[in-house]
Amino acid sequence: MAKKIIEPIKGTRDFYPQDQAWQNWLYNKARIVSQSFGYQEYEGPVLEPFSLYAAKSSEEIINKQSFVISAKNKTVQDNLILRPELTPTLARMVASKEYQLVFPLRWWSWGRFFRYEAPQKGRGREFYQWNLDLLGQDCPNADAEVITIGIRFLSSLGFTSNEIVVKVNDRKYLDEKLKIIGIADRKKLAVFRLIDKKDKVSTSDFQAMLSEEGLTKLQAQDLCLALKDTDYSGESAWLTELFSSLSDLGVDDWVEFDQTIVRGFDYYTDTVFEAQSKNNQGRALFGGGRYQNLVANVGGRRNIGGVGLAVGDMMIREALADLNCLPILSSLTAQVLVTVFNEELFRHSLLVADQLRKAGINIETYLDYQTPLAKQLDYANKKKITKVIIIGPEEAVVDKVTIKNLSSGQQKLVKQKDLISELKK
Amino acid sequence: MAKKIIEPIKGTRDFYPQDQAWQNWLYNKARIVSQSFGYQEYEGPVLEPFSLYAAKSSEEIINKQSFVISAKNKTVQDNLILRPELTPTLARMVASKEYQLVFPLRWWSWGRFFRYEAPQKGRGREFYQWNLDLLGQDCPNADAEVITIGIRFLSSLGFTSNEIVVKVNDRKYLDEKLKIIGIADRKKLAVFRLIDKKDKVSTSDFQAMLSEEGLTKLQAQDLCLALKDTDYSGESAWLTELFSSLSDLGVDDWVEFDQTIVRGFDYYTDTVFEAQSKNNQGRALFGGGRYQNLVANVGGRRNIGGVGLAVGDMMIREALADLNCLPILSSLTAQVLVTVFNEELFRHSLLVADQLRKAGINIETYLDYQTPLAKQLDYANKKKITKVIIIGPEEAVVDKVTIKNLSSGQQKLVKQKDLISELKK
Repeated sequence: MAKKIIEPIKGTRDFYPQDQAWQNWLYNKARIVSQSFGYQEYEGPVLEPFSLYAAKSSEEIINKQSFVISAKNKTVQDNLILRPELTPTLARMVASKEYQLVFPLRWWSWGRFFRYEAPQKGRGREFYQWNLDLLGQDCPNADAEVITIGIRFLSSLGFTSNEIVVKVNDRKYLDEKLKIIGIADRKKLAVFRLIDKKDKVSTSDFQAMLSEEGLTKLQAQDLCLALKDTDYSGESAWLTELFSSLSDLGVDDWVEFDQTIVRGFDYYTDTVFEAQSKNNQGRALFGGGRYQNLVANVGGRRNIGGVGLAVGDMMIREALADLNCLPILSSLTAQVLVTVFNEELFRHSLLVADQLRKAGINIETYLDYQTPLAKQLDYANKKKITKVIIIGPEEAVVDKVTIKNLSSGQQKLVKQKDLISELKK
Repeated sequence: MAKKIIEPIKGTRDFYPQDQAWQNWLYNKARIVSQSFGYQEYEGPVLEPFSLYAAKSSEEIINKQSFVISAKNKTVQDNLILRPELTPTLARMVASKEYQLVFPLRWWSWGRFFRYEAPQKGRGREFYQWNLDLLGQDCPNADAEVITIGIRFLSSLGFTSNEIVVKVNDRKYLDEKLKIIGIADRKKLAVFRLIDKKDKVSTSDFQAMLSEEGLTKLQAQDLCLALKDTDYSGESAWLTELFSSLSDLGVDDWVEFDQTIVRGFDYYTDTVFEAQSKNNQGRALFGGGRYQNLVANVGGRRNIGGVGLAVGDMMIREALADLNCLPILSSLTAQVLVTVFNEELFRHSLLVADQLRKAGINIETYLDYQTPLAKQLDYANKKKITKVIIIGPEEAVVDKVTIKNLSSGQQKLVKQKDLISELKK
């Protein structure tokens, strides 16, 4: 009886060469824009202590959507977690070298993250994320730079401000509103979490949820009104400077002030932002914000604030697919196959292949000399390799090789010493 | 009271930009050699079902050295495992597209792996591994190609055959010896596992362990004698052809036949090999072998065999450090800092920076216009940025900028339109 093929875990992905070519393409887009602004690549562990996230990240993500590994050694207090996001790791790394690192510090990273949530379009249990952060420069211009980098990235993928809007808010500005409405400081994070979900529920449900948190009907109504406010001028110097800087950076047609944007992480203190697809239920393509206390929260002694963004690979892919903008990529690495005529000429073929490799040309060699030439050509055709090199006894004796072009069908006899220049043509 | 900085998990690593530059350097070395032989990059999930490894990989690694996550949903039979190695994933991926993929198939991958073992020099709980496999070409030449690629990789890092020996064996050849000695087939895997550990124990302990597995004293003695055999000629056509092919590929001074090499994975059926550091207790730099049944074992219907190698990043780093051969790498991405003179000229600096970025030059901008210029230059010096651009009111009014070279101390006033060509000099 034939066995069933073992299935991968739900929400994980296999990256066949074609898929990996896409991942590499996306990584390179992120790398190029990060480097153009002088950001340096870094990476953290996949396994982190649970305590790193507890009470500093997002309650929902940490308690409901994380892969947790129980500590084997029972004297170890801490369980392990598969990182659901990178900012706490960044804060930990910065804190532990806070007196050696040079600030302002510009870092970016590309890595894997894990969330135990129901897989759906654009969301998996394993995904890649691009993170970019600027620490130790506490001015709205820093936030404007990070937002601009996110926009430049989307623009390099083919998106325009016709499809994308980046909604920007300031939690501090919203804090003030909450104070005026008379919402106690201790209720702030809970109210922020509800605002973050506002889009997904009706106005009456939203008000009911606020009332559950202990807000009066009037407070709830006032909050709904405040969230509709679109004019910060005269009230927020921070937002005024931020939007002016975004304009200086040439991205004003992409950005928009929106009081309902708060983002899901508890550590954000000031600017928060989210890039949304205009024609797709506001799907978020990137998000981020400023965190002034996170480095200190993980044990740092210096008061180092930062601002950062994160972009997931799966949402980007979905959004590009919706626009019919997915790039056509080849996963082929060698354009040339050196065939092998028979056992006697095997070594000869290997030597030719090696000579070409040393000249920087990627070469596949057919290794089974018992396979008829026709079948070797068949393999090259199936693989879409464009050129095949044949060295039969007649060619070998006069130090020549035949180059066969599989797309045109033409073939050419060239001297072995001219082969490199011929292939590089 | 100052809090303690949260510690990372034992056996994990933080990759600061300098460390990440090393990881990227190593990845690129692996990429270049893989591609030069026509291998295509792929990747699998980090989370895999436990059943994928059970009884097919290494008993020790799976049961004692793996991070396991209990399935949350109790109806799910399977626990999750953080992948300790890649070959079972590769087999699963190949099996599930066995009728679409074109064979011979040449794939390589670079990714993260996890083992719950005591961290020690060259070994961590999280590590990177380069994997390279050739499937669907069942001849010794395929094995010779994979071994050669491993050697080319080490050679591209600076190693020579003075420091490294690649020991090669054939499990089938050893099978025959075991049969002649009268060791039952069902004891084979257990005996292989003991041979794999032979180097770490004394001869008497080794014989005692064999006796525990039910071998007679005579059988144990015969086995020890057989393991000393260095001459396969006339007895093994496979090994004869393999070593002849390795010689054709020009790596004969690196390789050596050794009957005691069996490697730790149960799925190897034929050729097995291991690159060892000569002057460092035989530390393994890469290992691999041929697995004829693995694709079928995970559910494949076609009989697809393969051969592959794996290289860990940590051992390589240790070995390069021992030889004083670690490369000197820069983690700096921007060589130029555009300073900002004051609030009025901020926009001007941003525009100059952006113009340079569009010309492909990586640029950092100083974003806080309240920071005195001297402090901005101090930042550039600390960061080892070589060139600084200054645009004061005098420069701005005549469309010029000052370029200051921080290593020579020289500065130069250039027209803004000549800036790109000046920096690209």
